[in-house]
Amino acid sequence: MNGRELSAPSCTVETPTLAHVAALAGVSPATASRVINGTARVSPRARSRVEEAVQRLGYVRHRAAPADRRSGSIAAVVCEDDARVFTDQFFARLFSGVRRELGDERELVVLIVGRSGRWGTVAEYLRGGRADGVLLISAHGAPAMALRQTGVPVLLAGRPLWTTPLPYVDADNRGGARTAVDYLLKCGRQTIGTIAGPPDRAVGVDRLAGYRAAVGDAGLPTSGLITYGDLHQASGEHAMNRLLDRRPDIDAVLCASDQMAVGALRALRRTGRRVPDDVAVVGFDDSPIAGRVRPRLTTVRRPIEDMGVRMARELLGRIAGDAPVGQGVVLNTKLIIRDSA
Amino acid sequence: MNGRELSAPSCTVETPTLAHVAALAGVSPATASRVINGTARVSPRARSRVEEAVQRLGYVRHRAAPADRRSGSIAAVVCEDDARVFTDQFFARLFSGVRRELGDERELVVLIVGRSGRWGTVAEYLRGGRADGVLLISAHGAPAMALRQTGVPVLLAGRPLWTTPLPYVDADNRGGARTAVDYLLKCGRQTIGTIAGPPDRAVGVDRLAGYRAAVGDAGLPTSGLITYGDLHQASGEHAMNRLLDRRPDIDAVLCASDQMAVGALRALRRTGRRVPDDVAVVGFDDSPIAGRVRPRLTTVRRPIEDMGVRMARELLGRIAGDAPVGQGVVLNTKLIIRDSA
Repeated sequence: MNGRELSAPSCTVETPTLAHVAALAGVSPATASRVINGTARVSPRARSRVEEAVQRLGYVRHRAAPADRRSGSIAAVVCEDDARVFTDQFFARLFSGVRRELGDERELVVLIVGRSGRWGTVAEYLRGGRADGVLLISAHGAPAMALRQTGVPVLLAGRPLWTTPLPYVDADNRGGARTAVDYLLKCGRQTIGTIAGPPDRAVGVDRLAGYRAAVGDAGLPTSGLITYGDLHQASGEHAMNRLLDRRPDIDAVLCASDQMAVGALRALRRTGRRVPDDVAVVGFDDSPIAGRVRPRLTTVRRPIEDMGVRMARELLGRIAGDAPVGQGVVLNTKLIIRDSA
Repeated sequence: MNGRELSAPSCTVETPTLAHVAALAGVSPATASRVINGTARVSPRARSRVEEAVQRLGYVRHRAAPADRRSGSIAAVVCEDDARVFTDQFFARLFSGVRRELGDERELVVLIVGRSGRWGTVAEYLRGGRADGVLLISAHGAPAMALRQTGVPVLLAGRPLWTTPLPYVDADNRGGARTAVDYLLKCGRQTIGTIAGPPDRAVGVDRLAGYRAAVGDAGLPTSGLITYGDLHQASGEHAMNRLLDRRPDIDAVLCASDQMAVGALRALRRTGRRVPDDVAVVGFDDSPIAGRVRPRLTTVRRPIEDMGVRMARELLGRIAGDAPVGQGVVLNTKLIIRDSA
């Protein structure tokens, strides 16, 4: 079989391979590979012949066979609006952990598709890029169907709130919130409120559940003491004002993010309340701002880099065919005591 | 021709189409399309048959024909390390402009590939995702070769420093630096230094060139007055210390970024110099920190959202086949006078 046969109307190509491309282009497979990988100099003539052959055959490099799996990539799909992705340190820290664990073995390509990303398009990118595995971040809903088509392991960042068998890595948000409330109780606080996160996200639901469990176990009521924010500063300020309106006797507040805690500090300052003397404030995440704001925030540390490392490790394990042990891996959080509580 | 022929060893499939997939799977093209797009419910049996057919045929949806080009996506490829991408507001602002101009017509998928991204892999993602066009951001070098394979228009963010015929959209960095220095001269400053950006980036090279031109035209020397930073705060502080060591008589400094200007303010404060009385400081970009720091920064505004809008518009024009007018589009900058100069 030579290249010319490939261009004839009758052929035996079901899935065009690099060898087919090389044959049609009349170059060596090594040359075709160099053109396709863009890794070395090739004569313009050879390049254009290879490019033409690629186009004619509809050649797309496929997911590597087990033997050369090392050449594949890992895709991280972020379903979040740019404005948040590009300002929230969470992503930088998570991917720093992922890259550290991947090392040079596999390339990481991050796809940001927005909250309204069309899953068909995403799946096509993933197939084309022959991802060996997918880390799915901030996905709110059921993209699993489209992703399953890519036929590669998928791992979620954070516990999914929808029904899915997909594995995930998360921090112990519930346990962290519980520990924080227990600490506030031990400090003698009696009227503990919370500024919870969005109810459509695990960090919202699970941190609130931890708060409820701890306050309930202590036999204290929560009436008028629960409010919600979007995890950002301004919403924390508004929410704190609402709490103060409803319960002027509040003496502690657990915020589902450090940013909201910073907003709460501002609202408390404006009403002349001292932190922590009058009202103790606990944040969540231990993001950089927690140590910079005054008073410095007592907060629940979420091990974000470690989550990235663990996500990469779990995904690589599934790619290698390791049998999964349970659906979720939950990493410990830690209460960091500073000045605000 | 029916589906079974397709699975026989001899066939006529050069580029498998949706119709081939449907035929091989024994379902209607509409059903095959629904599975591939992940857009609607399909029976598990039909789905698995379609998925099997996709795999056997090596089917990848190709770039749409002109008639339904609207269904394609635009890819923005960012060749920058995560740590910078996820903390620099530049990207959020640029993509906000891009999305505004794209509207609902085309989806934007942002690919972050790191500085060491392998271009073969990137090209495969782009082909698979059948991008109609590519915005290339922070690319330092010659990925054009690999991207050309994708056969779609490519547009650069920022003037390239390597030889390429690729079109670009940039801000007038040179003119902005010139205007800033002219303003300092008009204010009576005589010993004007600069903290330039990296010499391998257009914002470094062009802003320095504008500084040199303005100082040179005024007949003033630049000896000991030029130093470099990496655009971040700490490097601005170090660079300002170097300038003060070499030229304690310095009375003004143009910084190639607001972040470096903030670092310079800190160094000046530490040596007891007043800003702007002793030393005038001008930043670059007019990023959010410029209005927050004290004294508030006089700075050269780069119209980042407008750059995003214009990039999208230029790219859409090229996709539509409009004849390009020149290689580069350069948007005006504007000197914003606040308190530091």
